[in-house]
Amino acid sequence: MKTYAIGVDYGTNSVRAVIADCSDGHLVGTAVFNYPSGEDGVLLDARVPHLARQNPADYLDGLRASVAGALDAADREAEFARDRVIGIGVDTTGSTPLPVDAKNQPLALDPRWRDNLAAHAWLWKDHTAAAEAAAITTTAREHAPYLVRPIGGTYSSEWFWAKIWHCLNTAPEVFDAAASWVELADFVPAVLAGVESAGDIQRCICAAGHKALYSDAWGGLPPREFLTRLHPALAALRDRLYDRAYPPDRPAGRLTRRWAGAFGLPEGIPIAMGGFDAHYGAIGAGVRPGTLVKIIGTSTCDCAVAPASGGAADVPGICGIVPGSIMPGFFGIEAGQSAVGDLLKWWVDGICEGDEALHAQLCGEAERLQPGESGLVALDWNNGNRTVLVDPRLTGLIVGQTLHTTRAEIYRALIEATAFGARVIIERLQAHGVPIDRVVCCGGVAEKNPLFMQIYADVLAHPMHIAGSPQTPALGAAISAAVAAGAAAGGYDRFEGAQMQMTSLKPRAYMPDPGRRAVYDELYAIYRELHDTFGGVVPAPVGLGDLMKRLLAVRDRVVSGCLAPGTEVAGA
Amino acid sequence: MKTYAIGVDYGTNSVRAVIADCSDGHLVGTAVFNYPSGEDGVLLDARVPHLARQNPADYLDGLRASVAGALDAADREAEFARDRVIGIGVDTTGSTPLPVDAKNQPLALDPRWRDNLAAHAWLWKDHTAAAEAAAITTTAREHAPYLVRPIGGTYSSEWFWAKIWHCLNTAPEVFDAAASWVELADFVPAVLAGVESAGDIQRCICAAGHKALYSDAWGGLPPREFLTRLHPALAALRDRLYDRAYPPDRPAGRLTRRWAGAFGLPEGIPIAMGGFDAHYGAIGAGVRPGTLVKIIGTSTCDCAVAPASGGAADVPGICGIVPGSIMPGFFGIEAGQSAVGDLLKWWVDGICEGDEALHAQLCGEAERLQPGESGLVALDWNNGNRTVLVDPRLTGLIVGQTLHTTRAEIYRALIEATAFGARVIIERLQAHGVPIDRVVCCGGVAEKNPLFMQIYADVLAHPMHIAGSPQTPALGAAISAAVAAGAAAGGYDRFEGAQMQMTSLKPRAYMPDPGRRAVYDELYAIYRELHDTFGGVVPAPVGLGDLMKRLLAVRDRVVSGCLAPGTEVAGA
Repeated sequence: MKTYAIGVDYGTNSVRAVIADCSDGHLVGTAVFNYPSGEDGVLLDARVPHLARQNPADYLDGLRASVAGALDAADREAEFARDRVIGIGVDTTGSTPLPVDAKNQPLALDPRWRDNLAAHAWLWKDHTAAAEAAAITTTAREHAPYLVRPIGGTYSSEWFWAKIWHCLNTAPEVFDAAASWVELADFVPAVLAGVESAGDIQRCICAAGHKALYSDAWGGLPPREFLTRLHPALAALRDRLYDRAYPPDRPAGRLTRRWAGAFGLPEGIPIAMGGFDAHYGAIGAGVRPGTLVKIIGTSTCDCAVAPASGGAADVPGICGIVPGSIMPGFFGIEAGQSAVGDLLKWWVDGICEGDEALHAQLCGEAERLQPGESGLVALDWNNGNRTVLVDPRLTGLIVGQTLHTTRAEIYRALIEATAFGARVIIERLQAHGVPIDRVVCCGGVAEKNPLFMQIYADVLAHPMHIAGSPQTPALGAAISAAVAAGAAAGGYDRFEGAQMQMTSLKPRAYMPDPGRRAVYDELYAIYRELHDTFGGVVPAPVGLGDLMKRLLAVRDRVVSGCLAPGTEVAGA
Repeated sequence: MKTYAIGVDYGTNSVRAVIADCSDGHLVGTAVFNYPSGEDGVLLDARVPHLARQNPADYLDGLRASVAGALDAADREAEFARDRVIGIGVDTTGSTPLPVDAKNQPLALDPRWRDNLAAHAWLWKDHTAAAEAAAITTTAREHAPYLVRPIGGTYSSEWFWAKIWHCLNTAPEVFDAAASWVELADFVPAVLAGVESAGDIQRCICAAGHKALYSDAWGGLPPREFLTRLHPALAALRDRLYDRAYPPDRPAGRLTRRWAGAFGLPEGIPIAMGGFDAHYGAIGAGVRPGTLVKIIGTSTCDCAVAPASGGAADVPGICGIVPGSIMPGFFGIEAGQSAVGDLLKWWVDGICEGDEALHAQLCGEAERLQPGESGLVALDWNNGNRTVLVDPRLTGLIVGQTLHTTRAEIYRALIEATAFGARVIIERLQAHGVPIDRVVCCGGVAEKNPLFMQIYADVLAHPMHIAGSPQTPALGAAISAAVAAGAAAGGYDRFEGAQMQMTSLKPRAYMPDPGRRAVYDELYAIYRELHDTFGGVVPAPVGLGDLMKRLLAVRDRVVSGCLAPGTEVAGA
C-alpha cells in the first residue's frame, strides 16, 4: 500500500508544497503560493539599502494555501488518499530569523508592531547588519577564534546574531519586546506542531550550526562572556533562545488536531526537523559521501557530507562544516559562490539591458566559441567571494578585452569564471580529505542552460549530473518526513535508504571533452593567478592583493560625500 | 594688403582644403571631397583582415576638387583674391606609402595594376604587415638597436618598411614593378610641383624619421647591411628611395603652370614640405616648447617639441623623437594612445549596441558620478599600448565591478582609464627633461565631450585648453605654406611668428577641481599598479606581468584550430 510524505519549501518569493510518493519520490501533488506582501514577497525600505524583510503572515497564509492546494491536486491521483500521508517536512531560506513573543507568536502579527519592519522576518538576503557582522568577526578572531573556525573565519551580515544585534542597535523597542528569536526553518514546524511557548521550539542544527555559532563542542550557543563583549543584552537573550539543537534524526513534533482537521490529514503524524533549503535540496538531489551537490541559481550553494570519523572538521575557507547538519551521522559541509546566475543577470539585464531572449541569444553565440578564443578571463567576485576566500569585499575583474570583444564573449567568460570558482572549491575540499567523485547539479541554471553545464563539465573535468527532480528542496523535505515517520509507518529508518528510493538523476549528463578541458586547465591556471593575487593569498609586490579593497575604501569615502583622502568612513 | 595660404588635409575618408588669412588664421574658404572608392574611401578585402588600402586616383581627384571648391568659397569674401595666395601646404595620414613608377606615377593608375590592391596606397591603418614588423623589431634589437631606440624600441605594422616588405612577400610582382615608394605626404607636394621623376621627390623628415628609420645620425635610411638581413630586395630598393629628408624649413617645390592655371593661382608659389596630419595639427594648435598638443579622436596622438639642445633625444617608451619633425630647429616628439574614442565606441556601439544618443545619455549619467564612486579602475589597452609600453599585445582590464555596476559607470571608468594613460605619458616626458606646462587639445572628442575634457583636467591636474580652429591640421598646413612663402611675400620667416598670429585657443578651458583631483591621485596610483604589473614593468610573483600575452597565445592557438596546449602558432 502506497504511503506519501509532504514537503513544504519556503523560498524567497513563494512557498511550495509537494506530496511525494514514498516508494519512488514521484510528486503526486504540487501547489505554489506567492507571498502577497511587499515586492514579490520582500518588504523593502527605499531609505535603507540592503534591507529585505518578510511578513510572517505570508508564511502562515502560504502554509495553509500551499499544503491544501497540493492535497487537492493529489486527490486527483487514483492511488492517493489523505490518510496515507505519513509525515510533513519543511525547508526554508536562511538565516531568516524572526522575533516572537512568549507564546511563539510573531511580533509582526501584533498590531502594535505591524508597521515596524524590524518586527518582521529578517530575510536571508538582508544585509543591513554589515557593521555588526564585522564586529562579531573581529571580536571572535581576537577573543574566541574557535567560534568562527568552522564557518571559515568570517561571520556574515546575513546571519542570526548580526541581524539580531542590528535590531538591538536600530530598533531596540522590537528587541526588548521579543521573548525569543526563531529561524523560519524552526518556526514553521513549531507552528504545525502547535508549540505555544517560545521555549519549547525545537531548533535544527542546520541553522544553529551554520548561522548562530552553535556547537556541541563548546556547549551550544556562544558563551555568555563572548556575547557580553558584543552587547550585554545579547548575553541576556542567550538564556531565552535554546540550549540544544538537533540533527534531522528525530521529529520536531506531531501534527496537531487543528492542522490535521484543516488539511484532512491524520492527527499526530510526525513533523520532521526543519532545515535550510540548500540542505534539504542536497538530500533531494541524492547527496552522499563523495557527491557534491551544486544548487545553481542566482548564487550557488555547494553541499557535501563526510563521515564524522574523517578529517573534514576543518577545511580552510569553507564557510560551514557542522556535525549532523544535512544528514545525521555526517559532517554537513556547505560552501558557495556569491553570484552565479546573478552575474549573468547583471551582464544581460544590467549592462546589455536585455531580457530572457538576449540570454538565449548570447548563449547561442557563446556556444559557438572555443575555450580561450575570446582571450578573456574574469573573476566571479561581483558579489564578493564566499568560498574559499570568505571575503565580501572583493569585486569583479575582466581582463583580455580588445576593441572586438563582444557581449557574447564576455557572457561566456563570466560563466567560465564561475566554473573556475567552482573548481577552486572542489580542489580545496579534495585537498583536505573530502573526496569528490560525483557532481550533481540542481536549480534553474542547471536545468535551463546547456552551455553553462557543458562549460562546467569541461572546467571541472567531471560529468555534470542533474538531479531528477526539479524540486529537490521540497523533495528533500518530504524525504525527511518519510524518515521521521520511520519504516514501520511505511517510511524509512535512514536517509540513505529513503534517498536510494526517492531520488534520481536525469538520464543525460554533460560529459567533459578532453580537448576543451586541456585549454581550461591553462585558463584555470591564469584564473588562479588572478584569484590568488587579487584575493591576497600570495604577496604581490605593489599591493594588488588589497587593490580591490582600496578601491572600495575610496568609493565608500566618496559616496559618503567626502572627496578628500585620509578620511575614515564609519563602518567602511 | 591681405595674403592667403592654402592648406590641404588628407584624412582617412576625405580630403579637405582651406584658405587661411595669413594675418589671423581665419578660414575664408573650405571644401571637402569624400573619397569615392571602397568603403568611405578605404579599399577592403573580405578575405584579408586588417587590410586597408586607398585609391591614388581619389587623392588626385580630391586635390583638384577640394582646392577648387575652397577657392570658389573664398571668392565670395570681399577682400579675397586668388592672386593673393602665397603658398600651398599639405598634410596627410601616415605612414601611407604608395608604389610609383619612374615618372612618379602611382602604379595603381596603370590599367595593368588597377585591380591589384597591393599597387594602391597602403593606408596608415593597414595592419597586414604584423609579421614583417615583428621581424624588423627582432632584427633591429639584435643587430642594430640604435635604429629602433628613437621609436621606442618597437617597429609597427603600420609603418613604411613593414608594409613594403609585406608587399614583397605577398605581391612580388607589384614590388618589382615599383620604381620607388613614396609617402602620401611627399607624393601630393611632388604632384603640385610637377615632379616627374621618382628620384626628385622631396621627402619630409616627419615620415622618414618617424616611420622609415631615417636619421641624419646614421646617414639616412637604415644601412644596406641591415636591410639585407631583412631581404636583399629591400637593400636594393634603398638606392631607389632617398638619401636625405628635410624638415619643413624649405619648400618642396613650386606650383606648376598647369596647376596654377587650373586653380587660377599665381604660378611658382611655394609648395611647403608635406607632413603628417598630427604634426601639422600640432602646428595649427600652437605647439611650442612646454606645450603638449593632444589630438583626441579614435586614438590619441600627442605632439610636443623640445629644444634640440635639450636632453629629449632619448625618452624611454616614447615612440618617436625626430630632430626637425613638427617644427624646424626642435626635436619633434610624438606619443600616443592606441584607443581613446575607439574605446568608448567599443563600449557604446559594440557592447551596449547603442548609438550617438546612448553616448549622450551615458555622458549625462556619468557626469553625475563622483570620481571613485563606481569603485572601478580600467586599463585603456583594448588596442594595445603605444606609449610608454610600446606593446601592441596588451589587452584591456576592468576591476571593481559589483552586481550594481552600470554601463554609465563603466563608460566613465573607460574615459578615466584613457586619462590615466595620458598622465603616464606626460609624467614620462617630464621625468626626461621635456617640460609640459600647457595642454592644448583638438579633435572631435575634445570639442564634443565636456565630461571627457573635465575628467582629463582633473586627472592631469592641468587646464585643458582647446585649439581655436576645428581644422588644426589644415590650418597647420596653411601655416607651413605661409612660412614657405616667407615674410617678404606677405607670409612669415618662422613658424613661431606664424603660429603667434594664425593660431588661437577657444575662450573656455576646463579647469581642474582640487577635490576631484585628489581622488584621481589615489585612483591613478592604483592604475599605475595595474599598469606596471600587467605591463611587465615590475616583476610579479606569479607572472601577472605576461598574463595578457599568455591569454593571447592561448587565443591564437585556439583560433588556429588547435585546442591542445604546447603547440606553437606561426606568427603568434
